Amino acid sequence: MGYTYLPVEQVRAYCEQIFVRHGFSAEESRGIVDVVLTADLYGIESHGVQRMIRYHDSLVKELVHTDAKPRVLFETKLSAVLDGNRTMGQVTARAAMELAIAKCREHGFGAVTVRNCNHYGIAGYYARMAAEEDFLGFSSTNTEAIAIPTFGRQPMLGTSPLALCMPADPYFFWYDVATTVVPRGKLEIYNKRGDALKDGWAADEYGNSCTDAGRVLDNINAKRPGGIFPIGGGSVDTGSHKGYGLGIIAELFTGIFAGGHTSPHVENGGMGDTSFGFMALDYGMFGDKKEIRGRMSELLEELRASEKAEGRSRIYTHGEKEMESMAEKQKTGIPVNEKTLEELRMIGAYVGISFGGMEMQRG
Amino acid sequence: MGYTYLPVEQVRAYCEQIFVRHGFSAEESRGIVDVVLTADLYGIESHGVQRMIRYHDSLVKELVHTDAKPRVLFETKLSAVLDGNRTMGQVTARAAMELAIAKCREHGFGAVTVRNCNHYGIAGYYARMAAEEDFLGFSSTNTEAIAIPTFGRQPMLGTSPLALCMPADPYFFWYDVATTVVPRGKLEIYNKRGDALKDGWAADEYGNSCTDAGRVLDNINAKRPGGIFPIGGGSVDTGSHKGYGLGIIAELFTGIFAGGHTSPHVENGGMGDTSFGFMALDYGMFGDKKEIRGRMSELLEELRASEKAEGRSRIYTHGEKEMESMAEKQKTGIPVNEKTLEELRMIGAYVGISFGGMEMQRG
Repeated sequence: MGYTYLPVEQVRAYCEQIFVRHGFSAEESRGIVDVVLTADLYGIESHGVQRMIRYHDSLVKELVHTDAKPRVLFETKLSAVLDGNRTMGQVTARAAMELAIAKCREHGFGAVTVRNCNHYGIAGYYARMAAEEDFLGFSSTNTEAIAIPTFGRQPMLGTSPLALCMPADPYFFWYDVATTVVPRGKLEIYNKRGDALKDGWAADEYGNSCTDAGRVLDNINAKRPGGIFPIGGGSVDTGSHKGYGLGIIAELFTGIFAGGHTSPHVENGGMGDTSFGFMALDYGMFGDKKEIRGRMSELLEELRASEKAEGRSRIYTHGEKEMESMAEKQKTGIPVNEKTLEELRMIGAYVGISFGGMEMQRG
Repeated sequence: MGYTYLPVEQVRAYCEQIFVRHGFSAEESRGIVDVVLTADLYGIESHGVQRMIRYHDSLVKELVHTDAKPRVLFETKLSAVLDGNRTMGQVTARAAMELAIAKCREHGFGAVTVRNCNHYGIAGYYARMAAEEDFLGFSSTNTEAIAIPTFGRQPMLGTSPLALCMPADPYFFWYDVATTVVPRGKLEIYNKRGDALKDGWAADEYGNSCTDAGRVLDNINAKRPGGIFPIGGGSVDTGSHKGYGLGIIAELFTGIFAGGHTSPHVENGGMGDTSFGFMALDYGMFGDKKEIRGRMSELLEELRASEKAEGRSRIYTHGEKEMESMAEKQKTGIPVNEKTLEELRMIGAYVGISFGGMEMQRG
């Protein structure tokens, strides 16, 4: 697939205008697009501007409520529960994490959950918001059920990510993982290529490991049994039960603590049904922050500097590849595939703004 | 290996007497033995009375300080950091979790870390202490390094468990997992049997997956490169990087937040060098506790009731097997292997108490 490179600030301004035309304030639009572009800058194309068409469609169909505001349902010194009122996920998620951070700043810890909302993009964005304030950040969202429990065959849990971000130098520890062994997008890529899936990624309608991507995706689309295995794969020998439990933990901090739909009851791909959980913790509660941050930085450096496996030249720590990707894309621009480029033009035409000559020459 | 069944309350009294003879108070001894016996009752033999010999030896050698007390190094409303002063892990860990629970009771959240301590037994015991008070509980400990980072070959992280316990009915959600794909004990069992390890469990001295248990254990014992892979196994295809990150998270909540040794610097099998982390969170910060507990119970029941994989008759939720094991062992007694039985007699003889006719007839 051919890629065109778009300059970061131009694509940012263009996407912001799209949301402004859809009725969001300039500030809300900036917030939404920052989440979207961070994914592209970090090299997570699946959650970047290629999702603009999905956001656009749901705004056109009024599945996402532009004028609604989240409402505080319950609040304590350390916590709040919000009704997302089917608002744009990124707008309400940012507000929720900001509230958690404010509570953390005042009391040392803040936890905010949200129900009845929409996809919020990359979980790690919000965890990082807390780390930018020199706090430990946590974020999770549930999703429509696609993961099968150990010894099961029915999709019961989401790909629900767990994200945690801890300040460190030169890179934050930025952990953001789906609680399934692979995301659904990976099955789709293998299916397009006609490649067999790896054993332990996905289950057929009987709950057995299945390498036929087409069959697995057909079952998922038809809402038949079968789905993706949790982290740890399809056998307790490889730790399936450990990933299955992480999926339950993600559900606890989202659907359960938000009083929203749990993954088995999330419908319409999560439109309006999604729950989030956010936490910020001032790690100064454990002593001098410079010392603690220094110890974390040292551990991460020791990991990177430790002996490499045969044939490997680097050991990464979580968030390092993303920082390198961002530095590179600030220079080259954001790579956008042909289909997405066409969608971006089409969305602009729909809302009445010009795409212009945004394409970069490859350096 | 032959097993003898010992009545729970008799073995409890016997083990408590051993610790009393070693200089602990009756209350401390009760606390230590409750942690040890909970492992046996839950079916986690590796952490049960078979470890009595290890505890006894370290007390005889004065590696564990009987008279020392933990000291508060730093404290806030929500938190504390303790110096474990090389005390018995279970005594100080219980005190630390009790302090976290007291802070949680007053403020809604409590976090306590401990450095310079000794093995504390099963991580889940302490998470459960918070759940018994109707709070969400979390516990972790670091260990001597045995896990290799993704693309590495040098042991850098521990088997460091992550434990979380959330109140639910009829069973708590009780999650307690090593952040390695398998524990070291599993390699030892396979080695004794002469069985090949599963692919993706352990690495040879070059960092490649290795199924030769003897070779892996020899390398570990000789402190050569090689070790156990994190959850997710030996390849990013199976999610190795996800488990590697969980190992770092366990380290963050223990060695880093406690200001203790991190796993690469834990020596002597962790004697006096181990760090712990405990958190208690009053989930009433998210609304009515009965409703939240009810929602969690419902999700767990939905998981257990969901369609089973071909050839499977049950789906478990975490903590369910342990409750069934406990109910059974309250009747049958605790199964103790021949070697452990001999060690228990020997320890009693050393400290001057009688083992007596404790063995049960098998029901």
